[in-house]
Amino acid sequence: MNKVVVLMSGGVDSSTALYYAHRNISRDVVPLSLVYPSKHNEQEMAAAKEIIHSLGEDIAKQYLIIELDFFRLWNSALIQGDAEIPKGEYAKDNAEKTVVPFRNGIFISIAAGLAESIGADRVVIGAHAGDHFIYKDCRPEFIDAMARSVALATDNIKLVALFLNMTKAGIIKMGDSIGVPYRHTYSCYSGGTLHCGLCSTCIERKESFQEANVFDPTVYKE
Amino acid sequence: MNKVVVLMSGGVDSSTALYYAHRNISRDVVPLSLVYPSKHNEQEMAAAKEIIHSLGEDIAKQYLIIELDFFRLWNSALIQGDAEIPKGEYAKDNAEKTVVPFRNGIFISIAAGLAESIGADRVVIGAHAGDHFIYKDCRPEFIDAMARSVALATDNIKLVALFLNMTKAGIIKMGDSIGVPYRHTYSCYSGGTLHCGLCSTCIERKESFQEANVFDPTVYKE
Repeated sequence: MNKVVVLMSGGVDSSTALYYAHRNISRDVVPLSLVYPSKHNEQEMAAAKEIIHSLGEDIAKQYLIIELDFFRLWNSALIQGDAEIPKGEYAKDNAEKTVVPFRNGIFISIAAGLAESIGADRVVIGAHAGDHFIYKDCRPEFIDAMARSVALATDNIKLVALFLNMTKAGIIKMGDSIGVPYRHTYSCYSGGTLHCGLCSTCIERKESFQEANVFDPTVYKE
Repeated sequence: MNKVVVLMSGGVDSSTALYYAHRNISRDVVPLSLVYPSKHNEQEMAAAKEIIHSLGEDIAKQYLIIELDFFRLWNSALIQGDAEIPKGEYAKDNAEKTVVPFRNGIFISIAAGLAESIGADRVVIGAHAGDHFIYKDCRPEFIDAMARSVALATDNIKLVALFLNMTKAGIIKMGDSIGVPYRHTYSCYSGGTLHCGLCSTCIERKESFQEANVFDPTVYKE
């Protein structure tokens, strides 16, 4: 059975990617959380743990967490101690402040090195279309270039970006059909216990459940 | 003046890259050491510090060190606690044990993210031709694919691999002409205070100084 490394943040996209990989790619999935000092990482990690445990003990045993404290040097509103999280929709100016430079490149590279080390033949990432216009490291051309980089410098490990051409609503619709327990996922940039309901990810989350016509189990503060 | 991030390990290639970048690309160089738990990292870091200080206080003040402890999960003879360093030349089987999966991909990605965060427009790496046949992450095709990835997901940051088409002898010849103090560099995989003279990098180092017809200041144990 082929081993697959799945990047797992505890949000909607990566949780769906993990469930999808486990159901349709391989039962031997290794969830990998790369934790950086973001304002929301404690809530995200708690969510990731819940989702992973919901897949059973065998998967939970394989779970790896790597802390990346060096992101403290990065300039981004998402990082602890930096500027405030902007409220409101993913308008370009607002969201640009939440860019964490080259984050997905770093995440994919670490996942690829780990995959090669533990004999996995695939790395799965839940990056998706809705993010393209702001987050350059979610664009198909970038994912393609990274996929080529990874294949060239490993034993031909494949980078699989499952949702590259889907919207978040499409991801939720699909995830709901394979039983992803969305009540456990977390994606608020403000980092409170409840979702704030006001930041760009909260607004996107709310709208996507509506658009997907799937019950939204999230409790929003506002 | 454009800011440039230079990956710096304290070995011959990266020390030459740093000197070259400082002389010919920009006076505003930011040396970046990504330290992983290799058997030789203490000696390398001491070497890096010497070389950087030899460029003056302004450069030394910009020096950044990031520790990457997660490499302990990697399977490689270079990592502390893993298999022994093989003796002898860079024969394929021997050297394969010293591969650190996707190391350059991870290094380039972190350097790119940092560069974007601090407003640098270039990342310089000293990867070179002699390593290609063993180290997949030193091949021109790989460097090209990473350069494309970096340009796409940043504000068009350029990845500059100065020595891609040079041999180590060629690098030393050029470095000698711009005053690189090679006596301070360190590149032995065994990690002792003196260079062992027997591991693959020591043998390559010795032969390259000879081939370049440059005085080899290295004290080898054997």
